[in-house]
Amino acid sequence: MKAVVLRLGHRPFRDKRVTTHLALVARALGASGMAMEELDERVVAALRDIESRWGGEFFFLEAEWRSYLKAWEGVKVHLSMYGLPLDEVMGEVVAQDKDVLVVVGAGKVPRELYGLVDYNIAVGSQPHSEISALAVFLDRLYRGEELRRDFEGKLRVIPSQKSKKVIRS
Amino acid sequence: MKAVVLRLGHRPFRDKRVTTHLALVARALGASGMAMEELDERVVAALRDIESRWGGEFFFLEAEWRSYLKAWEGVKVHLSMYGLPLDEVMGEVVAQDKDVLVVVGAGKVPRELYGLVDYNIAVGSQPHSEISALAVFLDRLYRGEELRRDFEGKLRVIPSQKSKKVIRS
Repeated sequence: MKAVVLRLGHRPFRDKRVTTHLALVARALGASGMAMEELDERVVAALRDIESRWGGEFFFLEAEWRSYLKAWEGVKVHLSMYGLPLDEVMGEVVAQDKDVLVVVGAGKVPRELYGLVDYNIAVGSQPHSEISALAVFLDRLYRGEELRRDFEGKLRVIPSQKSKKVIRS
Repeated sequence: MKAVVLRLGHRPFRDKRVTTHLALVARALGASGMAMEELDERVVAALRDIESRWGGEFFFLEAEWRSYLKAWEGVKVHLSMYGLPLDEVMGEVVAQDKDVLVVVGAGKVPRELYGLVDYNIAVGSQPHSEISALAVFLDRLYRGEELRRDFEGKLRVIPSQKSKKVIRS
């Protein structure tokens, strides 16, 4: 079950750091890549830098959001505090066992988006952060399995109770 | 079981938005407040603005981090990609049923921190974001209950499949 993030409304100056965090979360918590209307090279460079050391193959692609969404074969989800509670719909999403497109907006999203997806899902109905909403969504989608993935990078952490241990291969 | 976030190493210019997201996540996902060495008034103002509309009572306090950490009665956790896997230790943390202090650093943290906490916990051993690490940690700590809390604000979302519904009281 593949997951791809569709990032809407990225504003290069304001959102560079938030979109970078979003891509890092997507990568670390099991998504395969991120689609945006216009790639921000600084975001891509930050991910490539992480990848060169920590492994994995996270893709970026540029696409017109409506056509990318409409062409998606699988489940289409939009994370929004106005949507249905995560607990209520997540079982249904997982049970379908199809690839998942996760739409994540920065600020306001076009109203038509609500009608174009299969599920508008709320990770709580309070304002917080698209970064946290994506993290909790992916963690529920992959039920913790995503945290055990081996990225086969040059650097690997040896989990430790009281220090930092990293091996280099 | 109360949770408080101890934010370390906040750099006002660079981290304003990330620390604001962090505080929003803490609030939305069940933490009671955030302690920092030096409060950033813009972060506090952003939270007060949300609170005035969406409810809840999230506290901020200024404290020297070592003394605050040492005086904490309950479990002390530091979120770090170098720590022990979440899945391995979360059961133990929850079973203690004590208040939890969650230390979240921006960038590098003082090395002594690793020895001062009860648990260094990794939400995956890959770099991502302190915002997502906190979100997944709190979601596991409160096992989804945190998303059902009523904040008793002036504004409330009526969860909806295809639109935005908000009531004002």
